[in-house]
Amino acid sequence: MELWFSENQTKDQKISVRVLEVLYSGKSNYQEIAVYKTAQYGTLLALDDIIQTNEKDEFIYHEMITHVALNTHVNPERVLVIGGGDGGAIREVLKHKSVKKATLAEIDDKVVEVSKKFLPSISCGLEDKRADIQICDGIKYIQEHRNEFDVIIVDSTDPIGPAVGLFSGQFYKMVYDALKDDGIFVAQTESPFYNVDLIKNIHRDLKELFPIVRLYLATVPTYPGGLWTFTLGSKIYDPLNVKSFEDIDTKYYSPEIHNSAFVLPPFVKNIINAR
Amino acid sequence: MELWFSENQTKDQKISVRVLEVLYSGKSNYQEIAVYKTAQYGTLLALDDIIQTNEKDEFIYHEMITHVALNTHVNPERVLVIGGGDGGAIREVLKHKSVKKATLAEIDDKVVEVSKKFLPSISCGLEDKRADIQICDGIKYIQEHRNEFDVIIVDSTDPIGPAVGLFSGQFYKMVYDALKDDGIFVAQTESPFYNVDLIKNIHRDLKELFPIVRLYLATVPTYPGGLWTFTLGSKIYDPLNVKSFEDIDTKYYSPEIHNSAFVLPPFVKNIINAR
Amino acid sequence: MELWFSENQTKDQKISVRVLEVLYSGKSNYQEIAVYKTAQYGTLLALDDIIQTNEKDEFIYHEMITHVALNTHVNPERVLVIGGGDGGAIREVLKHKSVKKATLAEIDDKVVEVSKKFLPSISCGLEDKRADIQICDGIKYIQEHRNEFDVIIVDSTDPIGPAVGLFSGQFYKMVYDALKDDGIFVAQTESPFYNVDLIKNIHRDLKELFPIVRLYLATVPTYPGGLWTFTLGSKIYDPLNVKSFEDIDTKYYSPEIHNSAFVLPPFVKNIINAR
Amino acid sequence: MELWFSENQTKDQKISVRVLEVLYSGKSNYQEIAVYKTAQYGTLLALDDIIQTNEKDEFIYHEMITHVALNTHVNPERVLVIGGGDGGAIREVLKHKSVKKATLAEIDDKVVEVSKKFLPSISCGLEDKRADIQICDGIKYIQEHRNEFDVIIVDSTDPIGPAVGLFSGQFYKMVYDALKDDGIFVAQTESPFYNVDLIKNIHRDLKELFPIVRLYLATVPTYPGGLWTFTLGSKIYDPLNVKSFEDIDTKYYSPEIHNSAFVLPPFVKNIINAR
Repeated sequence: MELWFSENQTKDQKISVRVLEVLYSGKSNYQEIAVYKTAQYGTLLALDDIIQTNEKDEFIYHEMITHVALNTHVNPERVLVIGGGDGGAIREVLKHKSVKKATLAEIDDKVVEVSKKFLPSISCGLEDKRADIQICDGIKYIQEHRNEFDVIIVDSTDPIGPAVGLFSGQFYKMVYDALKDDGIFVAQTESPFYNVDLIKNIHRDLKELFPIVRLYLATVPTYPGGLWTFTLGSKIYDPLNVKSFEDIDTKYYSPEIHNSAFVLPPFVKNIINAR
Repeated sequence: MELWFSENQTKDQKISVRVLEVLYSGKSNYQEIAVYKTAQYGTLLALDDIIQTNEKDEFIYHEMITHVALNTHVNPERVLVIGGGDGGAIREVLKHKSVKKATLAEIDDKVVEVSKKFLPSISCGLEDKRADIQICDGIKYIQEHRNEFDVIIVDSTDPIGPAVGLFSGQFYKMVYDALKDDGIFVAQTESPFYNVDLIKNIHRDLKELFPIVRLYLATVPTYPGGLWTFTLGSKIYDPLNVKSFEDIDTKYYSPEIHNSAFVLPPFVKNIINAR
Repeated sequence: MELWFSENQTKDQKISVRVLEVLYSGKSNYQEIAVYKTAQYGTLLALDDIIQTNEKDEFIYHEMITHVALNTHVNPERVLVIGGGDGGAIREVLKHKSVKKATLAEIDDKVVEVSKKFLPSISCGLEDKRADIQICDGIKYIQEHRNEFDVIIVDSTDPIGPAVGLFSGQFYKMVYDALKDDGIFVAQTESPFYNVDLIKNIHRDLKELFPIVRLYLATVPTYPGGLWTFTLGSKIYDPLNVKSFEDIDTKYYSPEIHNSAFVLPPFVKNIINAR
Repeated sequence: MELWFSENQTKDQKISVRVLEVLYSGKSNYQEIAVYKTAQYGTLLALDDIIQTNEKDEFIYHEMITHVALNTHVNPERVLVIGGGDGGAIREVLKHKSVKKATLAEIDDKVVEVSKKFLPSISCGLEDKRADIQICDGIKYIQEHRNEFDVIIVDSTDPIGPAVGLFSGQFYKMVYDALKDDGIFVAQTESPFYNVDLIKNIHRDLKELFPIVRLYLATVPTYPGGLWTFTLGSKIYDPLNVKSFEDIDTKYYSPEIHNSAFVLPPFVKNIINAR
């Protein structure tokens, strides 16, 4: 069928994916939500016409946004995921037996609902009894919870629209306060090709709060440019000095990948080292 | 201007790039050649409508296809690049002072001509006095040169069209013979998402020839899926055991990246470990 | 939503229409059927990725394929529509009070079913008690009905796929035999820009059967090139000599349009006059 | 080559044409100009990414914007074309032997230059000794020439950008004054599907000036919707009452087409009859 979904990755580049079936499309209070069945990626979730996740390559992003921090922390029991309504991050978090409660703070209940219905292999973690789903503004939620979490993960959309507040120094301060004294924060921080200033600013903002701030990389085929950054801020534990790794079933992450992900090509190193 | 170049990456996915100017387009004896000026990638070279290289991200591919092998070899003096008519690999090879002669065996003189004219920042190495440009069939060339090269690099197009012979076990045998007793072979070996069988076969074929065979990774934004594999076969030197690195100016490659590039996510490891 | 349906009108041209909703998509025994809700055309029906009809401009095609012949005939009582499963031609035929029975011979029951469900403003005529819906091969149907119809209308898809038999001289002979002694045949006969040979052949084939053969034109925005031909073969009545027109409610057709539609630009005249 | 020019006909529809070669592309003082060699239409001229003319179907538009008025006038000697820098209208005007001087008032000399170079079969008339090429603002030009022209033709781009002033009542008054006492005005007036209000307003404005105002139609495949309107205002001669037609060589226009072009489908008639 000649039906194509196009993501305008920039004004000068777009990716088009053949759609076999539109499983869902609608407008929530926050964004346009679409779920497509595609030949290339299986079921694919797009928010405001930006690919968020898909059955084929989601494992990369979800493993990398979670296991690095959870293995860095010696005993993560309370984990908060802000955004991530598809449930993929929660699914990975719950692979860690130490985790007693994994809270999802997602602003858009439609994303949760749609993911539960159409992306069960991703959202399955949301059904776990240790999962605590809060439909709320993550910023408000975090203000009301101080000194509570071992790990906070920001699994947000791009810094436009509903997610814009999740990329500010003000927000990072709240995150810091919501973490326990040995807590770790991690966020997806966009592309080193397209979002140089953003990455630089986040790094600078986090350095004012956390003694340990590190950038790491993974390649997500459906994100613009492929190469993707994550930024981690830690109060005590250094991700480069992890002694023992939990034995979890993964397809992209491994203890070796954990360490090599922090090895940055010079052009990426320059982003965070530049004044 | 609403002028777009589209690469059909698969039958179900395409990438479209806005074209500002068509700098060149024509048919050689081997393929369709186009050079576009784009807003996204600067000048971009496409062969048979497949993006080969571009000013913006070429450094990744060209650094990674060369420096890993050249730093693995203790004293690379004679280097052969098969394909790579844009000159980017030669440019990187010549950054190594030990190299006395770098031969380019490119079948299509039009690619060389067009790259010299429109991609000077990539093709500049071809003007070096140590560069030896041979317009010829790489397979024939290699049959006529035995026990001659320290490093052979296959910088080919995809395994369809003119490059198909460069992915066969028969060809690898010739490569082996053309290498000196401590020689190293490296080739771009496509995507771990889209070319699983190809990567597996190459690995198997090389293992029958070389005692040391290793796969490594880099992310090239303009290649399908981003993540890209290179396969290296070595007679003596192990790329994981490099003692000293030449001090060269690079943007993606570094001694640390050299090592981390060999750290494979489990799903990639499975490709080459599967029977 | 960045969801687009594309029709490859030729290998060098395509039209893309933004899709708001996929109302239906599936494969019947004969073809791929899709019903899209679009901003441009309202609900749109595509068969094998070719636009067949849509709420916005369907009136042109359906009025022009029916009223010319029905007003040319002095007393059309029995009308057969071959193809036309959307029901639009039947709806127009039934505007003529003289018509006692309008038979639809459509090979694909899915087209009828889908049109009834999603295109009620077009398919409404199918609910009329004078409408006789036969799901069958039109060629077989016509062979079994001789000397029976006043008007036969071939409202087919393009001459590829299921409709190819509806464009042959052999078929026209069957049509001739199925018509009464003063019967009239009319068919959509594609574009004078893209289907010159087809139009020429149809004209020649019909001239061997009918004493009066005439080509007429209408502009259908969603068909390639816009300008569209219809060919009419008549045993007795000349469409250029209609004495009285029934008073029917139309948006494109009128008695004046009836006559002016037969005025052909020289380049179209040349198609049917050329040897 | 997978190089495509897209015209966004509306925000919900686009047409894409495969480009074989970019013959010219640049920015003039007024607009973006591109000349593409295409498989579908031969050489094609686009201004601000809107198709203006092409070798394949230009005859329709150029014949219809000229011969209707020139045959309506009993003795057209002085003709003015405003816009029409490609020269197609001038070429047709000069087929009339009565014409002593055909003035082109085109604001953008780049359009003339580019058309002369790349579209010789269209621009050839500009080389005629009776052609008088004025690079100037048509509105200013017409203000300085009163009671001078037998026929004034406005062959403009769409009513956005440089051409917007050519669609106002104020401008039509100047046109009226620049015409002789038996002069005729004609303009391309866009699509009856997409520009209903525009057509209505032009008709109303012209009715306040000219005793005879008539709309006529032709189908131009490369214009949105195919069906296209022209509006003619005449001081004395009625285009529906032409006694003799000059014998000129045409492919779309003919004396019969002259008359049938004024036969409007009811939905078009309604546009100009509606209050």
